[in-house]
Amino acid sequence: MIVLFAIVLIFIPLFSGTSAASDMTTHGDTVWENFKFVKNIMIWLMLMLVAFLMIFIKKYEWGVALAVLLSAAGSFVVYLAIHDLRFGDVWDQDLLLGAVICSITIVIAIGCFLGTVKPWQYLLAGIMFAPVYVLIEWFIGSVTLFGELAQDPGGSILVHMCAAYFGLGAAIALREKRAFDEPMYTTTHSVSFVWLAAMLLWALWPAFVTAFLPVELVSWGMITCYMAGIGSVISAWAVCHLLQKRVNPLIYTYAMLAGPVAIGAPLLMAGPWAAILIGIVAGAASALCFIYLHPWLCARLGTLDVMGVHNLHGIGGWIGAVSSAVILLAVGAPNAAAANMTAAAVVFVVTLVLGMVAGFILRLTRGGIMCDHLFSDDAGFIKNEE
Amino acid sequence: MIVLFAIVLIFIPLFSGTSAASDMTTHGDTVWENFKFVKNIMIWLMLMLVAFLMIFIKKYEWGVALAVLLSAAGSFVVYLAIHDLRFGDVWDQDLLLGAVICSITIVIAIGCFLGTVKPWQYLLAGIMFAPVYVLIEWFIGSVTLFGELAQDPGGSILVHMCAAYFGLGAAIALREKRAFDEPMYTTTHSVSFVWLAAMLLWALWPAFVTAFLPVELVSWGMITCYMAGIGSVISAWAVCHLLQKRVNPLIYTYAMLAGPVAIGAPLLMAGPWAAILIGIVAGAASALCFIYLHPWLCARLGTLDVMGVHNLHGIGGWIGAVSSAVILLAVGAPNAAAANMTAAAVVFVVTLVLGMVAGFILRLTRGGIMCDHLFSDDAGFIKNEE
Amino acid sequence: MIVLFAIVLIFIPLFSGTSAASDMTTHGDTVWENFKFVKNIMIWLMLMLVAFLMIFIKKYEWGVALAVLLSAAGSFVVYLAIHDLRFGDVWDQDLLLGAVICSITIVIAIGCFLGTVKPWQYLLAGIMFAPVYVLIEWFIGSVTLFGELAQDPGGSILVHMCAAYFGLGAAIALREKRAFDEPMYTTTHSVSFVWLAAMLLWALWPAFVTAFLPVELVSWGMITCYMAGIGSVISAWAVCHLLQKRVNPLIYTYAMLAGPVAIGAPLLMAGPWAAILIGIVAGAASALCFIYLHPWLCARLGTLDVMGVHNLHGIGGWIGAVSSAVILLAVGAPNAAAANMTAAAVVFVVTLVLGMVAGFILRLTRGGIMCDHLFSDDAGFIKNEE
Repeated sequence: MIVLFAIVLIFIPLFSGTSAASDMTTHGDTVWENFKFVKNIMIWLMLMLVAFLMIFIKKYEWGVALAVLLSAAGSFVVYLAIHDLRFGDVWDQDLLLGAVICSITIVIAIGCFLGTVKPWQYLLAGIMFAPVYVLIEWFIGSVTLFGELAQDPGGSILVHMCAAYFGLGAAIALREKRAFDEPMYTTTHSVSFVWLAAMLLWALWPAFVTAFLPVELVSWGMITCYMAGIGSVISAWAVCHLLQKRVNPLIYTYAMLAGPVAIGAPLLMAGPWAAILIGIVAGAASALCFIYLHPWLCARLGTLDVMGVHNLHGIGGWIGAVSSAVILLAVGAPNAAAANMTAAAVVFVVTLVLGMVAGFILRLTRGGIMCDHLFSDDAGFIKNEE
Repeated sequence: MIVLFAIVLIFIPLFSGTSAASDMTTHGDTVWENFKFVKNIMIWLMLMLVAFLMIFIKKYEWGVALAVLLSAAGSFVVYLAIHDLRFGDVWDQDLLLGAVICSITIVIAIGCFLGTVKPWQYLLAGIMFAPVYVLIEWFIGSVTLFGELAQDPGGSILVHMCAAYFGLGAAIALREKRAFDEPMYTTTHSVSFVWLAAMLLWALWPAFVTAFLPVELVSWGMITCYMAGIGSVISAWAVCHLLQKRVNPLIYTYAMLAGPVAIGAPLLMAGPWAAILIGIVAGAASALCFIYLHPWLCARLGTLDVMGVHNLHGIGGWIGAVSSAVILLAVGAPNAAAANMTAAAVVFVVTLVLGMVAGFILRLTRGGIMCDHLFSDDAGFIKNEE
Repeated sequence: MIVLFAIVLIFIPLFSGTSAASDMTTHGDTVWENFKFVKNIMIWLMLMLVAFLMIFIKKYEWGVALAVLLSAAGSFVVYLAIHDLRFGDVWDQDLLLGAVICSITIVIAIGCFLGTVKPWQYLLAGIMFAPVYVLIEWFIGSVTLFGELAQDPGGSILVHMCAAYFGLGAAIALREKRAFDEPMYTTTHSVSFVWLAAMLLWALWPAFVTAFLPVELVSWGMITCYMAGIGSVISAWAVCHLLQKRVNPLIYTYAMLAGPVAIGAPLLMAGPWAAILIGIVAGAASALCFIYLHPWLCARLGTLDVMGVHNLHGIGGWIGAVSSAVILLAVGAPNAAAANMTAAAVVFVVTLVLGMVAGFILRLTRGGIMCDHLFSDDAGFIKNEE
């Protein structure tokens, strides 16, 4: 207890500047603030549920949850440190939303190499990712291309492509060949957790895509988000059913989310019936990529995309970018269309390269052979089973 | 990818009318709009959780989740198509709320015949149900009986009775005798998922019953909803414990929700202490019906109400209708009381008949024997177990 | 049905005073009211998730859920009855928030003796606890110490210390020695439910600590709550990993919540970087107490703190009280610091003593030997397993 007191005493000086509640920033608009408060919680819930979307390998469940928590914690702190200490941003709901969306992005990204690095390295991955995200965030939000800012209110490019290609880059650099041979057996309930996570994520998604929208646009964002989601719920099932007769739940529960992923960029350009079509295309494309592209791509890259992140977030992100560009062309805004495609291309290249750098650092710091088996809770956790 | 582009290009014409965000409808009242946004998400969460309320048969878990998604998707789209294309309604939060509540109603209803039809038929069931719901919604909301509109703010009649009798009608027409003999073994965790769903649904319920209330009435709706819920949590346990000594979790987790079901109609007529009494009656009645009415009724109808939907939603709905009528009588509004009882009776007859029509179509389109076993994931899903 | 009608008719007289919706209380401030509505639901969700935080003993899962429901129901009703019938409070969102927070406190408290009393006794525990909570609530909220009110906006003292010491007092009085010898085997998925609950609770926590804050302070409360939570996510893992090499998930999933517990008292005194330090201290201290203090303390007390409530809520509460006092001293408010420490000490003593009284009553009413095994669903539930 004495040590404890000593530690507590150490941080007293830190309070001098920031401790007074009167220093906090509030917007005059309390509706704005309260509504964002609720969405902040909902997006944190989504982040946590992403862990359960990836928890299907029966011998590697708890490690997934821990990896999600550590990578989220690392990126959250560093994102806030950059914005507070470097840029001097005020602490308000939008800053918190930026931070949790940064964290959800790395949480998606680690799916590419989950189970192939050591637990503490997820914390490191989060710490390394935050500056990359801040860079991409600045690029999308501030750099005009062909005289236009990229339009990506729901994060198809900023979040999903960034996650997919940063993660894929890291997996390529890690080059863990053993992942191909490691069995990934499931149980009924390990997969039922995935169903739970996918279904709740689907329902919460409008909070995510409308996070930064002005208050008068959120209803529109919700309408197109849910319509796109309905589209992929139907089309992903149709593709799985028609092509494989029996549905692979680990394809369906992911591909049913491809509509909400893809609608991010065209969120406010599409009407409801266009949105459902985008969702149908995205759900079908994601399921097709799981079945056909995934094995081919992983073999070519020499690395396994463990959770199939690319088939949902990579493909979904591209469909978002392309469909938004098509709509912008159709409504006579070619420069805006070019801006969106260029932004997507830049994010693709930059995050892939920086992901490889991060993966290289993870490989260097991993230290020899990790354990006998990949995807395993045995080495990391105490169990008390009969 | 070329095919993909081609598909995307097809839907460009669809954007002409609706693509501009400026076409969207916003209410001047942003509080109203933001609050409904949150409730919309919460009701979608409830819809998803209903799947986990029905996931207890260990060999039939994923199929339940898929059935919920497909029936919800079918009804959601058709409900919106009718209101948009036929009635020309604006797309706003209330339209979305109507659609998700329509979907949650069919999701409850399929519980009567879950596991006895093919997966694609849940999509068909949703598509067939939406027009029925629109009809009942119009009847409750617009038709005066004895000079009064029926009062059912929380959906005891519109949602729960409609779900129970449409589902029961379909089950009667399907007449799947094999359901009686099929074992429905559970595991500890398949039932723990049901506990999770029941408890979270209970907590989310006020979002559902207050969905369409004006802002100054929502607190009242929350008070009576939670008080009724507390009542059934206690009385359902007492009945199970006293009658069977050991509690059947598949009775308790359903009957504990009977209070919130029943309070829908008298939501704004009851004070908190009256609400808890309604909840006590509803919870006890639901548990009693599971124990005594269920086997007798199923034997008489010649069909199994697979998830016991009638014991929660049918009985709970009737208690809501009767208790609202009793209160209206007590406060000297006999015409309003008669309107509520008449509305309940009409909904009972109409949904039962239309449910039988839908069940007949499901039977015709099912095509011969479905598979060796009912309630089974084996035929529908790829498994990767050791 | 006739009996049912008779029962319904009995409660007509109860409606006379309260049935009219016009009697309800609304605040002019609808933003305030709607926002609290959402937080009320979120706190109920948290209460339900606490059950799943304690559901890891594979032979005692459903009983935990039932115990949570019954203790919550008992305390909720009695709390409201005291405030309505005795104090004549209006029924509004704040009253409901008070009631659910009272209930969540007893739900935490029963963790100390879960599985050692009969199911109906959890209802009794809730009923006995509500007056104790009302007393402590009055003491913290209304009694000035050294001329100051204790500052505990997020409930470190009022909720967490109260829960820990009331529960510990009851466990001491129950003195169930068999609990030490009873095996508490887990399964992968019983622990995965705990991960789910811990992670979702973490995300929902800001709704809890800001429940009673004025609208312009909620963002600050969210910032410090999440920062403290990030701190304990990292430090709890570091301690587990460094001390035990392999992480005990039943320590980590609890200790990762110690930051949010501890930040309750200094919620509005700390800046974000101070908050993360408080979280780091709390997470580390909680993990250390699970590892070292828990076995020693339980042996000394002669009773097992079944769920280790004291290591999270007791220690976390003390860290909240001490850190708030340290900050208040540092900013030159010694009287306020003394008020907080005195409040904590009084709550410690009073709840421990009253908990012992409650535990004594539970022991007297338990009636002989409960069953062959503690922590068991077998005696209480019907199972239908193959």
